[in-house]
Amino acid sequence: MRATGIVVEYNPFHNGHQYHASEAKKIANADICIAVMSGSFLQRGEPAVVDKWTRAKMALNAGVDIVIELPYVYSTAQARQFASGSISLLHAIGCESVVFGSENGDIAPFSHTHHLISTYKDAYEAHIHEAIQQGMSYPQALQQAYQHILQFATEPTVDLAQPNNILGYHYVEAAHHLAITPLTIPRIAAQYHDQALAHDSIASATAIRKALFETNDLQSIEAFVPASTYDALCEWQTHSTFIQWQTLWPLLQHTILQKTPQQLTQYVDVSEGIENAFIKAAKTSFSFAEFMQKVKSKRYTWTRLQRMLTHIYTGYTKDLQAQFSAPTYIRLLGVTKQGQLFLGQQKKTLPLPLISRVASSNDPMLKFDLQAANVYDAAANMTRTEPRLNVDYTTPPLRIY
Amino acid sequence: MRATGIVVEYNPFHNGHQYHASEAKKIANADICIAVMSGSFLQRGEPAVVDKWTRAKMALNAGVDIVIELPYVYSTAQARQFASGSISLLHAIGCESVVFGSENGDIAPFSHTHHLISTYKDAYEAHIHEAIQQGMSYPQALQQAYQHILQFATEPTVDLAQPNNILGYHYVEAAHHLAITPLTIPRIAAQYHDQALAHDSIASATAIRKALFETNDLQSIEAFVPASTYDALCEWQTHSTFIQWQTLWPLLQHTILQKTPQQLTQYVDVSEGIENAFIKAAKTSFSFAEFMQKVKSKRYTWTRLQRMLTHIYTGYTKDLQAQFSAPTYIRLLGVTKQGQLFLGQQKKTLPLPLISRVASSNDPMLKFDLQAANVYDAAANMTRTEPRLNVDYTTPPLRIY
Repeated sequence: MRATGIVVEYNPFHNGHQYHASEAKKIANADICIAVMSGSFLQRGEPAVVDKWTRAKMALNAGVDIVIELPYVYSTAQARQFASGSISLLHAIGCESVVFGSENGDIAPFSHTHHLISTYKDAYEAHIHEAIQQGMSYPQALQQAYQHILQFATEPTVDLAQPNNILGYHYVEAAHHLAITPLTIPRIAAQYHDQALAHDSIASATAIRKALFETNDLQSIEAFVPASTYDALCEWQTHSTFIQWQTLWPLLQHTILQKTPQQLTQYVDVSEGIENAFIKAAKTSFSFAEFMQKVKSKRYTWTRLQRMLTHIYTGYTKDLQAQFSAPTYIRLLGVTKQGQLFLGQQKKTLPLPLISRVASSNDPMLKFDLQAANVYDAAANMTRTEPRLNVDYTTPPLRIY
Repeated sequence: MRATGIVVEYNPFHNGHQYHASEAKKIANADICIAVMSGSFLQRGEPAVVDKWTRAKMALNAGVDIVIELPYVYSTAQARQFASGSISLLHAIGCESVVFGSENGDIAPFSHTHHLISTYKDAYEAHIHEAIQQGMSYPQALQQAYQHILQFATEPTVDLAQPNNILGYHYVEAAHHLAITPLTIPRIAAQYHDQALAHDSIASATAIRKALFETNDLQSIEAFVPASTYDALCEWQTHSTFIQWQTLWPLLQHTILQKTPQQLTQYVDVSEGIENAFIKAAKTSFSFAEFMQKVKSKRYTWTRLQRMLTHIYTGYTKDLQAQFSAPTYIRLLGVTKQGQLFLGQQKKTLPLPLISRVASSNDPMLKFDLQAANVYDAAANMTRTEPRLNVDYTTPPLRIY
């Protein structure tokens, strides 16, 4: 059996994702598709709209054969680390290829970009360093450095001003290091940041979340998600609200208010005085939106601020981060029958332990995933009549046969 | 003008407290009565039922002339430190005496007890140390050591098995060191721990809180509090709920869940493995009551556990504690006209700064009081339609003229 891999957040799963999984198998000529999915917190520094189990179930019901969890350490990191963790895990579980969506569905410009940047690595990195020293945000610095070396390009490259292209580039870079084949398919219709529910059956996850939060009416998004996803969202809604930063706000505010500026700098990415701004804003803000209005500045992107707040919320300290490098386990969230067959075939040659029951592991990176899941549920529980406790510890992998 | 001092929590203020303030002035032959009152968190390791401003107002409307705040550092400490901080502040503001309630209203047995313990200090402390090493709780150890030296008593002493006597003893001890006269008046009717609303007009604060939490019906406690207190409680109820540990529970649970055992031991009093029990119980408890059931043991009194949790909740670390020794300021919460006259008389000779506006101070002990107030409000705000933010920073002392 041959497997291809995809890197996903499924926040929530929608028709575009179903198309992606199905096309991935075709273009890669694979029997199964394996998704490495972020757990409780996502790359833009946000909590997932519903928990990892609900999102894994959606995927397994709509064309994905295996869902493994991208550890928190990578799922909330910058593009390079996010991609490197994801691709390592797909490689470790036995994917021969990784398929990502792109504007044109052409892998060549990504490969050329990778070749160009590899060739002019020193100049490129010196430029990034300099631009950040000048107070530029990381994505801006990346882009300016890239513009500088573009003069040496002899073949078409990709526009790294697009967030999705940055991720795609890093997938290709990571795939290159690990000898896994990078492939791309054209993204259909909706753009990542599109907020309207325009197209007949395809909408961005952003637009779907917006509809969920604003109307709380699932019918408005029914056309854009598979029936099984719709059912899973309905089930979630019977006992919980859809989770966003505002849901976490009382807990985040308390966490900030009970710390000195110095204590806040123990968390990953928090430094350079932003800790003072956080405390000042927490003292005077009634909501997460108001808090963000008060702390945003040219120096930091919205995403970077949200990532810092995610780390403060979950308790991800610089000391913890320093312990982690490459992924040390493959956490199985769920399988289909086909997925199970593939795992049976791979089992004996996996380079990392495959974790089905977390109680059996003492891996510190995994322990932090459980901590992130518990503090995610702590927020969800405030709105539940029947709180869910320690869910990750007691839930076995889903089997959708 | 002559002032006498009283040490109070007013959780909430009731008729017994009014009697105490009025009798204190008589027995001390004083013109005014000054209360040093705990702020947001109390000696048993609990949040106050209503905030410090509401409690100060109750007192100023019912016979107390000046209310100053007992800093968090003392208000949540063991009897000795609680008493020493309280008496120092009453001494600093110019009280010639301190009046506390006791069973018999006779100061002699307290003085004899103090004399006895001072005389046999070394043996007494060696016994306490040994008993704690054997796993006894602090109050138990104190009592056993005391039993041991009682054989040398030549005059009547007090029973240190009673919590109120332990506090009284420590008041006398602290007063002795500071040359302030300790006085006592008989406590009327209700005992500290009485839970029923029995007597015609006197009930313990414990019984009143119980009624507030259980019935949420203020009429049931109307007979036991002054009219001004009743009004203040009614006003509080229009915008907030009465605060108890359960109100803080989601925030406490999140705080524990986002920490490693090692990180939890940075908080005052948390050590010896109780940190592991806290994390384990936080993962599986639906309420504060359930959590406490899971962590309680013979080794720790309920109060001691609650104090640890208070320190975790507020962020009171051992590093912070190490910075603090004697009180460094007098924080004014409110005055009557008589109180204001007294302050005018004292102003130039006060040994500590009198703080009316916290914005003007950088005192780290005071900063921590503001932090404690903010995290207290963070819990109260979860139940309010209009949150109150940074109240201590913006509220000037009350003037009840």
